[in-house]
Amino acid sequence: MAGVAEALNPRSIAVIGASRNPEKIGYVVLKQLSSKFRGRLYPINPSADEILGLKCYKSILEVPDEVDLAVIAVPADHVIGVIRECGAKKVKAAVVLTSGFSEVGNRELEEKLVEEAKKGGVRIIGPNCMGVFDPGRGIDMLFVKEELLPRCKPGSIALLSQSGSVGTNMISMLRKMNLGISTFVSYGNKADVDEADLLDVLAEDERTKAIAIYLEGVKDGRRLMSAIKRTEKPVIVLKVGRSEAGERAVASHTGSLAGSSRLYIAALRQAGAVIVDSMEELIDASKALSMQPPVTGKRVFIVTNGGGYGIMAVDELERRGMIVPKTPDEIKYVFKGKFPPYYSLDNPIDLTANSTPEQYGMVLRTLCNSDACDAILVIPLMGIPNFDPIEVAEVISSIEFKKPVVASFVSHTEETDRAKEIMEKAGIPVYESPERAARAIYFLYEYGRSHSG
Amino acid sequence: MAGVAEALNPRSIAVIGASRNPEKIGYVVLKQLSSKFRGRLYPINPSADEILGLKCYKSILEVPDEVDLAVIAVPADHVIGVIRECGAKKVKAAVVLTSGFSEVGNRELEEKLVEEAKKGGVRIIGPNCMGVFDPGRGIDMLFVKEELLPRCKPGSIALLSQSGSVGTNMISMLRKMNLGISTFVSYGNKADVDEADLLDVLAEDERTKAIAIYLEGVKDGRRLMSAIKRTEKPVIVLKVGRSEAGERAVASHTGSLAGSSRLYIAALRQAGAVIVDSMEELIDASKALSMQPPVTGKRVFIVTNGGGYGIMAVDELERRGMIVPKTPDEIKYVFKGKFPPYYSLDNPIDLTANSTPEQYGMVLRTLCNSDACDAILVIPLMGIPNFDPIEVAEVISSIEFKKPVVASFVSHTEETDRAKEIMEKAGIPVYESPERAARAIYFLYEYGRSHSG
Repeated sequence: MAGVAEALNPRSIAVIGASRNPEKIGYVVLKQLSSKFRGRLYPINPSADEILGLKCYKSILEVPDEVDLAVIAVPADHVIGVIRECGAKKVKAAVVLTSGFSEVGNRELEEKLVEEAKKGGVRIIGPNCMGVFDPGRGIDMLFVKEELLPRCKPGSIALLSQSGSVGTNMISMLRKMNLGISTFVSYGNKADVDEADLLDVLAEDERTKAIAIYLEGVKDGRRLMSAIKRTEKPVIVLKVGRSEAGERAVASHTGSLAGSSRLYIAALRQAGAVIVDSMEELIDASKALSMQPPVTGKRVFIVTNGGGYGIMAVDELERRGMIVPKTPDEIKYVFKGKFPPYYSLDNPIDLTANSTPEQYGMVLRTLCNSDACDAILVIPLMGIPNFDPIEVAEVISSIEFKKPVVASFVSHTEETDRAKEIMEKAGIPVYESPERAARAIYFLYEYGRSHSG
Repeated sequence: MAGVAEALNPRSIAVIGASRNPEKIGYVVLKQLSSKFRGRLYPINPSADEILGLKCYKSILEVPDEVDLAVIAVPADHVIGVIRECGAKKVKAAVVLTSGFSEVGNRELEEKLVEEAKKGGVRIIGPNCMGVFDPGRGIDMLFVKEELLPRCKPGSIALLSQSGSVGTNMISMLRKMNLGISTFVSYGNKADVDEADLLDVLAEDERTKAIAIYLEGVKDGRRLMSAIKRTEKPVIVLKVGRSEAGERAVASHTGSLAGSSRLYIAALRQAGAVIVDSMEELIDASKALSMQPPVTGKRVFIVTNGGGYGIMAVDELERRGMIVPKTPDEIKYVFKGKFPPYYSLDNPIDLTANSTPEQYGMVLRTLCNSDACDAILVIPLMGIPNFDPIEVAEVISSIEFKKPVVASFVSHTEETDRAKEIMEKAGIPVYESPERAARAIYFLYEYGRSHSG
């Protein structure tokens, strides 16, 4: 972990290849860091005295203080010289944004880079990567301007992706879903630092509640599986390149072998990772696992006032192997006489269009205290008269659930968006379709299943 | 079809149970219609002279002109009397919004309603429904105010749903996706008019390019299957209540039997319907089928400049049984020397972060003319420097594709939203993840497979 922890949480950063040209990576990165990073920041450029109001150094060796992390944005053929200087300066880690290494067939240059870094005791993230984005700590090496790539807020999901483009677009999706991240790391060719190193650091990061990994190829399967096993946090993996054509595509995209994907996936699952099938699932699962405890049994109760949504949720839950049991007599007994006869109290519990927030509260509190229920899926149907979204969100959010709960709001109005915010502030993840909410419960179960006992 | 066509496209509408109380259904419906509907409109209320500036009649029998359609919002025990008057007035169809019939166990009242309607020659939509919403014709019976339920724009998807709440929330989802509908019909207990009747009318509606059905129970399977077979437009069905618990839930929600779902689904597919598994898929498939021709073979080519997205698309396509073949030599020959050596020209064709809109144009035009390609999936990676979303959208939109094409943009900025609009105006559906776009191609293939020859 030495060096990697500093790369993710540096006290000081040098930007080697800092530029005055707003179109250059070395400018964009310095600009982002200068406006957000609260540690010391040193632009390095042999032919500038000052950039963006910061004193510029001709080489990292001239910086008068310690430097934890170097961000490198010089041309490929200058990188090795720069890394040598980083070693001499005792820089702990370097993020090499520069491309032109193994991804274009230049394996030799990449091997030399690793060799030089080892000699100097410098850990390398990259090359050919987009580096680190940590909105909470003001670290932002994403060399795409905010107009093109709006950033998401700080939060509790860590996101790891070799691919910078997949990672950055996921940041854009997270933003759209009003979700936040603790740290995003794009590590490109992963010549040195890989998922296992990063997992070990994130396992110790208190802000991180779930770790999402977009994985193309695996270099050292055993190392990765051990790191996942060690991590006491949910690790969610989207392993792409599953089929023959997919494996071919991975090979030509990152130069790494996708390998026999089926075996990898089995091994990842065995190690305790939750396996997902799409970007959407990667985000949905990470959201659930960062907010809710694992589900430890298969029995799910659905509470709704929109019958159709209850049925869709049942279909998806049963497709995923979960169980939607009938409401047991002891619960029906509690409900007795409290609802009109046309309410359907069998699971899914349908409170109909005449329901009130209080009825939601009463039913949910009863389920919380029942041993017959392993998880709760609540689907308040908004967009109907006399049913205030804010009020129902407040009632649900005030409940002490004591067991996993996930919700779905299907409507999209300003008011339901506010209601969603209230629920999510209280730790209840809200999804935009009943099927996605049902799937989230399944992911909570997948994690619970492999981590029980 | 007599009566049903008039229900969907009336020249005149009477609102029976029109009210001056803004909280009542009879007010909300009249208000919507009075501000949008361009035909004649007659409020019926025995104790009012005028509502919302419209002259009020004590009974429909007093209306001096012909009435095509009556919208009924009187209490359940008044409905039969009102229907009798509709019959006497030779009204062709009535939408009964009123609830309190078979859905609360009151089957007898519903049977009497049907009997009375038959005697008078009035077709019934409902009872216990939300009726018709046709934004192009200004018909809006959705009795939920626009603040609670924002409406979508006119478009080419028709949407049928017994359930009003599922249907209206789908309208909200469509709006969020910037999609439009031709007609939405919620027919509740479907005491008389059912999916088969509506399909026959929509088959003749020139504005409708695809018909989406949310289906809980089926009353007369044979009738429905024949109607689907007759329809020369894509019919996409989300049949819910698939599992045992799901069937139980359908029974208690609509009082109709979900029936042996597996058999129904097989029969629906046999009849030519495209079967989907979730609300999201129902919308995604309808969007594709309303904009693009069927896919007639399994061979899909993917063009992207974001390698990872290409791989995700491959995974989803192959999961769905589609094929992502290697780029054949004759195409590679065309490309020869036109791209840098690190571009990956094998399928998925990865133009890398250095691609230009012109390169997209050149590759796509080549694929259009190749017999080796049955469909094209294009995934321009936005949010990178020097790659203008608007420009690439314009280049792609200007191509005469001659074969089915679907796109995915993963970024969400104002600019990519505009680029998406440009593409969709040109008839190319754009999805927010590569997997959803891949799935859309599969749905186009599903329709093509069952309608070839």
